[in-house]
Amino acid sequence: MTTRSLLILPGDGIGPEVMVEVRKVIDWFQSARGIAFDVSEDLVGGAAYDKHGKPLADDTMAKAQAVDAVLLGAVGGPAYDNLDFSVKPERGLLRLRKEMDLYANLRPAQCFDALADFSSLKREVVAGLDILIVRELTSGIYFGEPRGIHSDDNNPENEGGRVGINTQRYTSGEIRRVARSAFELARKRGNRVCSMEKANVMESGILWREEVQWVHDNEYPDVELSHMYADNGAMQLVRRPNQFDVIVTDNLFGDVLSDAAAMLTGSLGMLPSASLGAPMANGRPKALYEPVHGSAPDIAGQGKANPIACILSFAMALRYSFDLLAEADLLERAVEKVLADGVRTADLMGPEGGTPVSTSQMGDKIVQAL
Amino acid sequence: MTTRSLLILPGDGIGPEVMVEVRKVIDWFQSARGIAFDVSEDLVGGAAYDKHGKPLADDTMAKAQAVDAVLLGAVGGPAYDNLDFSVKPERGLLRLRKEMDLYANLRPAQCFDALADFSSLKREVVAGLDILIVRELTSGIYFGEPRGIHSDDNNPENEGGRVGINTQRYTSGEIRRVARSAFELARKRGNRVCSMEKANVMESGILWREEVQWVHDNEYPDVELSHMYADNGAMQLVRRPNQFDVIVTDNLFGDVLSDAAAMLTGSLGMLPSASLGAPMANGRPKALYEPVHGSAPDIAGQGKANPIACILSFAMALRYSFDLLAEADLLERAVEKVLADGVRTADLMGPEGGTPVSTSQMGDKIVQAL
Ligand SMILES: CC(C)[C@H](C(=O)O)[C@@H](O)C(=O)O
Ligand SMILES: CC(C)[C@H](C(=O)O)[C@@H](O)C(=O)O
Repeated sequence: MTTRSLLILPGDGIGPEVMVEVRKVIDWFQSARGIAFDVSEDLVGGAAYDKHGKPLADDTMAKAQAVDAVLLGAVGGPAYDNLDFSVKPERGLLRLRKEMDLYANLRPAQCFDALADFSSLKREVVAGLDILIVRELTSGIYFGEPRGIHSDDNNPENEGGRVGINTQRYTSGEIRRVARSAFELARKRGNRVCSMEKANVMESGILWREEVQWVHDNEYPDVELSHMYADNGAMQLVRRPNQFDVIVTDNLFGDVLSDAAAMLTGSLGMLPSASLGAPMANGRPKALYEPVHGSAPDIAGQGKANPIACILSFAMALRYSFDLLAEADLLERAVEKVLADGVRTADLMGPEGGTPVSTSQMGDKIVQAL
Repeated sequence: MTTRSLLILPGDGIGPEVMVEVRKVIDWFQSARGIAFDVSEDLVGGAAYDKHGKPLADDTMAKAQAVDAVLLGAVGGPAYDNLDFSVKPERGLLRLRKEMDLYANLRPAQCFDALADFSSLKREVVAGLDILIVRELTSGIYFGEPRGIHSDDNNPENEGGRVGINTQRYTSGEIRRVARSAFELARKRGNRVCSMEKANVMESGILWREEVQWVHDNEYPDVELSHMYADNGAMQLVRRPNQFDVIVTDNLFGDVLSDAAAMLTGSLGMLPSASLGAPMANGRPKALYEPVHGSAPDIAGQGKANPIACILSFAMALRYSFDLLAEADLLERAVEKVLADGVRTADLMGPEGGTPVSTSQMGDKIVQAL
C-alpha cells in the first residue's frame, strides 16, 4: 500500500480552526474511499515561537523535508508584531520555502459563479475569471544579501542616521526554472503566458525578461508569450483581468499582484495556493500548500473563518503531490455544490444578508457533498 | 511683473499631441487673464535620443533646474525597446527626477462622477473616490547601487551563467522627508495617512515603518497614521478604496499601487501627477508635472488621445508652483463641466456608444468652458 505522508502546520490565528475542517475531509477520504494518509502535525509561526523561541524548530524543518506534502494554515498576528525580525512568525514560513527550495508558487484566481456578485468589480468583468499567477518564491528581494538596517552616523546629510538595505538578486537559472513551470502549466490551460517585471528601470528585470524569452524560444515556442511592465500589469488586472491566462513574475511583484488578483474574485477566503520545488525520488515535486488568506487575528477563535481556501489547498495537494486527480476534482466539485446551494460563511455574505454558517458547519456541508 | 517660467517637454508618443492642448489653455490664461508665462520647450525621452543620442541633453537638464516648473508629456515606445539600458527613454525621466531631487510624487486618484460607470469596479465602490498616493521618487530600488547584469560563469549551478542585481537602499532622512510631505498634504485633506511597506519580510520596510512613525509621533501627532503591508494594500485598494485618504509608500510599491489606484477611476486619461522637491529661493518647491498615463504608441498621431490628464497636470502646476489657486480651481471646474456635458474622447466612451471628440476638440471645449 502506498503511504501518503502529510505534515500539517496549522500555525496562528484562524489557521488551527480551518485545519480542523481539512481533517474532516481527510477522514472522509480514509473512511469512505480507503485512501490512507499518514498525517502528522507540528508548530509554525507564532505558535512555534511561543514553544521554542523561534518560528520553526529544526526538527519540524526536517519533517517537512521528509514528507510528501506540507499543508500550512497561516502565520503571524499582532501578538508577535514587536518580535525581532529574525524570529518573526513569517520567518518560519520563509525558511520552509527557502530550504525546501519551493521556487514556483501557484496562485489561481478563480471567480466562482455563485460569488461573482460579491466582487467589488462588475460581474461582467470578473465572471468566469480563471487566471493562474506563478510567483517565484525562493529568491529576489526577499532573500538577497546584503540586507539589514545599519547606522549611517557619519553622513551628516542623513537625518536619523540609519540606512535600510535589501538586495534583489536573480540568477538566470532561477528565472529559467520558474519560467519552465509557468510554460508547463500554460500548456495544460490556455497556452498563454504573460511575464511581468520592470525591465525599463531595473536590470534584474531585463535579465528576467531575457531569460523568460530564452526558455520560450528554445523550449516552449508553442506557448504564446507576452511581456508587460508590472505597474501596467496591476492596472490591467483591475481593468480587464480576463485577458490573462498564466502570469509569471518575481517574488515581490508576485506578492502584490497575486493579492490584487485574489481580491478580484471577491472571496479571499476561497483561494488556495501551492508552492512547488524540484521533483523528489517519487517523481512528485516537493510541495507546500497554504490558503492565500492570512491568519485573520480579528476573527480568530470565533468560528467565523471560511475553511474553503484551506480545503481547496488540500485539493491541490491531492492533485500535485498525491496524483489523486479524480479525488481532487471530486473535492472541488463538492465545494462548488455547497456554494451553489447558498451555504455561506460570514466573509461570503452579500449585502442581501442571510444567516452565515460557522467554520465547522461549512466543513460538515462539504463532507456531506462529497 | 512676476515671470513664471515653465519648461515643456512633450516627449514621445501622444506626449506632443496632448501638449498642444495645454498650450491652448496657457494661451487663454495669457490673453483672457493677463497671466504671463515664460514658456520654453525641449526634448526628452526617445525624441531626445533621436537628436542627441541620449534621452536628456545636459543643457535640457540645466534648463529644468532653472525654471519654476517642468511639464512633461510622456516617454518611451516600441521604437526604443531595444536601446541599451543606459539610453532608454525612461532614463531621461529618471534623471530629471533624481537630479532635481523630486522626492515626493503626488498621484491623486479621483473618480469623476460623470465617469463613475466607466470603471471596471461597481459604481458604489468608486463613486466619490478621492485618494492621494504620495510615492517616494528619488531613491529605493530604482536608484540603489550595486546594480547591473553580471556574468556568473564560475557558478556551475547557474544555468545561463548570469546574475541580475538591484539594490533597495533607503536612508532614514529620505523616508522622513517624504513622510512629512504626506502628513502636510493629509492635513489639508482628510487628515489620515496610511503607510505601506513589507516590514514583515524586508528590513528596509522596517526602517520605513519606524521612520514614518517617528515623524508622526514627533511632528504630526494630530494626523491619524496607520500601517499596512503593501500586498494587503493592493488588495484593499481593490476591495474598498474609499477607506484611504493619503497613502505614502516607496518608489517601487508606489509605482505599482498608484497604477492600480489610477485604474479604479476607470479613466487613466484623466489623471495628473506632480513630483515635488525641496523649496527653491522663491519658496515654491522644485517641480515636474506629468500625466499618469504613458506614451500610448498604439494611438499616437491619430487625434484620439485624451489631453485632460496633461491639462490637469498643468492645473497642479498652477497650484503648487505658481500659487495661482483660483486659476487651478477654475481649470479643474472647466474640465468637470465639459465631462458633465458628455464630451468624451475615445478612451472615455462607455458601452452605450456615441461619437468621441478628437484630442483637439477636447482642448477647445475646455478652453470654451473656462
Ligand atoms: C506572510 C508573508 C511572509 C507572505 C509573503 O510576503 O510572501 C505572504 O504575504 C504571502 O504572500 O504568502
Ligand atoms: C516610465 C517609468 C520610468 C515610470 C516609473 O516606473 O516610475 C512610470 O511607470 C511612472 O510610474 O512614472
